[in-house]
Amino acid sequence: MTYCLAININRGLVFCADSRTNAGTDNIGCYSKTHSLIREGNRVLILLSAGNLATTQSVVKKINGDIKQEVLPNLLSVPDMLEASDYIGMISTSLQRSQISRDTYNSNFEVSFILGGQIGMAPPETLFIYPQGNYIHESDEHPFLQIGEIKYGKPILDRVIKRDITLELAARVALVSMQSTVRSNVTVGPPIELMIYQRDTLIQPRKMILSEDDPFFREISEGWNKGLLQALSMLPNFEWETRK
Amino acid sequence: MTYCLAININRGLVFCADSRTNAGTDNIGCYSKTHSLIREGNRVLILLSAGNLATTQSVVKKINGDIKQEVLPNLLSVPDMLEASDYIGMISTSLQRSQISRDTYNSNFEVSFILGGQIGMAPPETLFIYPQGNYIHESDEHPFLQIGEIKYGKPILDRVIKRDITLELAARVALVSMQSTVRSNVTVGPPIELMIYQRDTLIQPRKMILSEDDPFFREISEGWNKGLLQALSMLPNFEWETRK
Repeated sequence: MTYCLAININRGLVFCADSRTNAGTDNIGCYSKTHSLIREGNRVLILLSAGNLATTQSVVKKINGDIKQEVLPNLLSVPDMLEASDYIGMISTSLQRSQISRDTYNSNFEVSFILGGQIGMAPPETLFIYPQGNYIHESDEHPFLQIGEIKYGKPILDRVIKRDITLELAARVALVSMQSTVRSNVTVGPPIELMIYQRDTLIQPRKMILSEDDPFFREISEGWNKGLLQALSMLPNFEWETRK
Repeated sequence: MTYCLAININRGLVFCADSRTNAGTDNIGCYSKTHSLIREGNRVLILLSAGNLATTQSVVKKINGDIKQEVLPNLLSVPDMLEASDYIGMISTSLQRSQISRDTYNSNFEVSFILGGQIGMAPPETLFIYPQGNYIHESDEHPFLQIGEIKYGKPILDRVIKRDITLELAARVALVSMQSTVRSNVTVGPPIELMIYQRDTLIQPRKMILSEDDPFFREISEGWNKGLLQALSMLPNFEWETRK
């Protein structure tokens, strides 16, 4: 399975994705689920994907091919994030349909995307592109989007992610949300890719690739365990307990 | 939907269940999902249910009827928790099958149970009874069982629930797990029923019914929010951040 997350806050964007793929539990692979298109000073686009891996790769191939062959529109020509989403949604549904037309076994070719980034000085945006090619923004109340195995890692996001937090806090929360998911679902796994884009810079985001035994990733995990136990120890006693 | 949880630790058992039922999002109800059978000094049995409410109620009716009419076996006659599970599994599948035979619309009559308790001085046990009537124990590594909407509230259980913690800590973790689920899924909702059974007492467990505006339930929720923020603030900085 997959877990990808994008956070859109005042100071910029955070992206986090696992790398495990599986076609059945006995066929586990490792593929990056993040794809970036950067033209410094002009646009930063990050695409996260969940679903059929063949569809994903053919969508990415078509995106790159259109740019190379200067087919219009392409991701370098589109003027804003909504047209970028329209373009990706169109490619995605058309490639799914062409696979369905050759299908031999009622297969599922669906793929969901999160597109995030900034074009020119328009505000950064994140969009959830459905398998059907249509899309939505994140909500103002909960400014994040998730695809894949979303439930295990959602409560911490619901509680903490607000527009006005720092990029680094959002990134730490993203890692905690990812670790909760990795622990609870073996088909979500490291290496974890983390990208942090500072608003209005229009440069390559900071990127970290964290393997299972990465010291920083471990420190986060151990620190979080410790912090949770401490948080639990601060909760109110039941009335029958000896007061501390 | 439903979220029910049972924890089996050295010092006893903890049960936690929400009370919201829904037949579609426009048909929300409130029913207790916990059913207890207590004979002080002899046995304490707690049954939690998730799934078709009509099946659940007919299973409970049959359990009570068999006791009243002294049909054998019944939940007072069974000598151990495994035979209790066999008995409930048998009733459940037979009542599901009789409903299927009268079905008009490909309905889902399935129901899952968690049975927990203690019979005589045998160790307390918890069992997950599948819709198919078969069942499993909790695992030694993760000594808890969940039914219904299990994912949102699982990471905190995975991290904290061990055999040697106190009953009160387990109960607080159960409430936190429940609150995370209530926040993330509107079809899981209060009042929350919490039961705490101390091993070898063979008496009525402590029971709390916590409504949304119960002061203790609120203190837990607010305390947890505060604790999480503190836990986050203690996580290691990224290398590029100003050291605190």
